[in-house]
Amino acid sequence: MAEHTKAIRFGIMGCAKAATKVSRAIKMSPNSTLYAIASRSLEKAQQFATENGYSDQQVVIYGSYSELLDDPLVDAVYMPLPTSLHLEWAVLAAKKHLLLEKPTALDATQLDRILEACRSNGVQFMDGSMWYHHPRTAKMKELLSDSKLFGQVKSIYSSSSYVGGQGFLENNVRIKADLDSLGALGDAGWYCVGGILWAMNNNLPTTVTALPSVVRNSDGVLLSCTASLHWEKEEIVATFFCSFLAHETMDLTISGSNGTLHLEDFIIPYEETSASFKYTSGAKFVDMHIGWNVKPEEVQVDTGELPQEARMVQELSRLIQGIKYSGRLPDQKWAEVSRVTQLVIDTVIRSINYGFEPVYIY
Amino acid sequence: MAEHTKAIRFGIMGCAKAATKVSRAIKMSPNSTLYAIASRSLEKAQQFATENGYSDQQVVIYGSYSELLDDPLVDAVYMPLPTSLHLEWAVLAAKKHLLLEKPTALDATQLDRILEACRSNGVQFMDGSMWYHHPRTAKMKELLSDSKLFGQVKSIYSSSSYVGGQGFLENNVRIKADLDSLGALGDAGWYCVGGILWAMNNNLPTTVTALPSVVRNSDGVLLSCTASLHWEKEEIVATFFCSFLAHETMDLTISGSNGTLHLEDFIIPYEETSASFKYTSGAKFVDMHIGWNVKPEEVQVDTGELPQEARMVQELSRLIQGIKYSGRLPDQKWAEVSRVTQLVIDTVIRSINYGFEPVYIY
Repeated sequence: MAEHTKAIRFGIMGCAKAATKVSRAIKMSPNSTLYAIASRSLEKAQQFATENGYSDQQVVIYGSYSELLDDPLVDAVYMPLPTSLHLEWAVLAAKKHLLLEKPTALDATQLDRILEACRSNGVQFMDGSMWYHHPRTAKMKELLSDSKLFGQVKSIYSSSSYVGGQGFLENNVRIKADLDSLGALGDAGWYCVGGILWAMNNNLPTTVTALPSVVRNSDGVLLSCTASLHWEKEEIVATFFCSFLAHETMDLTISGSNGTLHLEDFIIPYEETSASFKYTSGAKFVDMHIGWNVKPEEVQVDTGELPQEARMVQELSRLIQGIKYSGRLPDQKWAEVSRVTQLVIDTVIRSINYGFEPVYIY
Repeated sequence: MAEHTKAIRFGIMGCAKAATKVSRAIKMSPNSTLYAIASRSLEKAQQFATENGYSDQQVVIYGSYSELLDDPLVDAVYMPLPTSLHLEWAVLAAKKHLLLEKPTALDATQLDRILEACRSNGVQFMDGSMWYHHPRTAKMKELLSDSKLFGQVKSIYSSSSYVGGQGFLENNVRIKADLDSLGALGDAGWYCVGGILWAMNNNLPTTVTALPSVVRNSDGVLLSCTASLHWEKEEIVATFFCSFLAHETMDLTISGSNGTLHLEDFIIPYEETSASFKYTSGAKFVDMHIGWNVKPEEVQVDTGELPQEARMVQELSRLIQGIKYSGRLPDQKWAEVSRVTQLVIDTVIRSINYGFEPVYIY
């Protein structure tokens, strides 16, 4: 095997639920290998491996995170630990390339320390948002970038919600103040903010305004939240709703001057094997306003063989291969995508704390 | 013909563009007759009649509004005048039953005077919002009311926008400070607010918050606006975007605890002859979060023979027949629908004027 095609060896650090999906994705990605699994105890790591059908012959099992990080054969670490542990462990893990589960940190200051550790070690950073890597996302960007068909962005709406199963609101890590204090904003809201910023080519808004509709649990963790982003000069507004208390939604609606794009499963497509979105351009009323001249087109996208999470891993491994075998520098794009997302989430929190005032982002 | 089935005679007061559609609706409605057309000049009224194929044998032509109102044979008036003229003329017209184009007035105080005139004269009031009368709307309400399938409302989003044709932003009545000072908020936003309140069974929100994303023309008229409504006790939030600067949208998305309802043509259906909306209930991730267990269902609705605007006229005439021939009292439901809508629009304006603060509605 040529050097530049050698598969990147992943170590999974923490056996959260998301690790099941991502470990499968690592196995599916053609340039990646699931090399090791670490948990706080050997039993937990072993149990995860057994449950997912990874035998000892296939993967190394570690009973501590440190052992995983000390293994020189580990190229990259996937870290789905609770958010409050990210700063400590991601900085330590940054001697490896890093796939960090979202929300990346409790705030942008923490994330900056993680990113700085990655930068000084020359490792690649990426957060675990999978939808950026779906071919549908690229197709949507292509149509959004069509200045004639779509025109300029005018308004964006996104929503991400689900109702946790029984016990979720009591026991899930995402609603514990000491583990994931950002609650629904950091979890579901991460995607809304990410979707909005993606549509805006990661340009930060002028102001962020939280809306007086916050729901918290007894620990003060956000269970539901609505906020708005405003690009002053461009006269663009975006709003989003994220919640652990509402039925499954994954909406992204982008209105332009000449067109509209809409889909309701932007985070996780309804099916792995097919994906689509709605696109409308040049819609007008017909005569006497008794109908429309065009209806939205359902744009089908060829999803190929790999699901989005495997494409995410594949893309990360491609970048790591470039660094490891071709002397390339880490691609800072993914750090920047995470950073603007985290910064907007910070600002939503500040707007809530300031009594729902518009807060400028500098 | 039995008394109670005698068709209600409509006079059209003002020959705005909307009058073409509504005059057709009056002709289509089986319990209604297009009896007279009035404009500020005989020529204009005559021209409107000719252009729409209404001959002098069919309709009476008046060169002033007063003549129309003085004609004892006129049962009901349809008034599509510029909003700034509503107060004066609607109060005068309230000796007839009244179909008043939206926005109903410049503010709720004006509307209250119009409604008071209607009440004291014992006439039926209705505003010209057509979509309430589409059979799809009734079907949506039925599904939203299903406490098991849909559950409790958690979040609502609505958008209404269009890009006026060439010259719209210079010449259209809807962007003139002296004619329709509410601009896009009174025109497109009327539907958003109406759609949201409809989903909330016309319960007023606790607070309304405008977002710092207002675009005005040089006259100060709103061309684009985003705002939010909040029901504090119920922990429900709604946001809407209305604009004269964005591509055609007519979105309504209602998220509940167990279900979601979505459509993109709620104000004017894509086609007169068919209509649908999306409904999802009980959606969950499938195992490993690699898809959904259910996809949205496209609920088709039998539209029947009459378009929504003819159903609106038919419903108004049915109520008038009840008053005229069966001694019934006017149905206050439609006055209330208009009033809560106008009140929320007032409060959006107040929130803008107060620097985008949340404003309580008492």
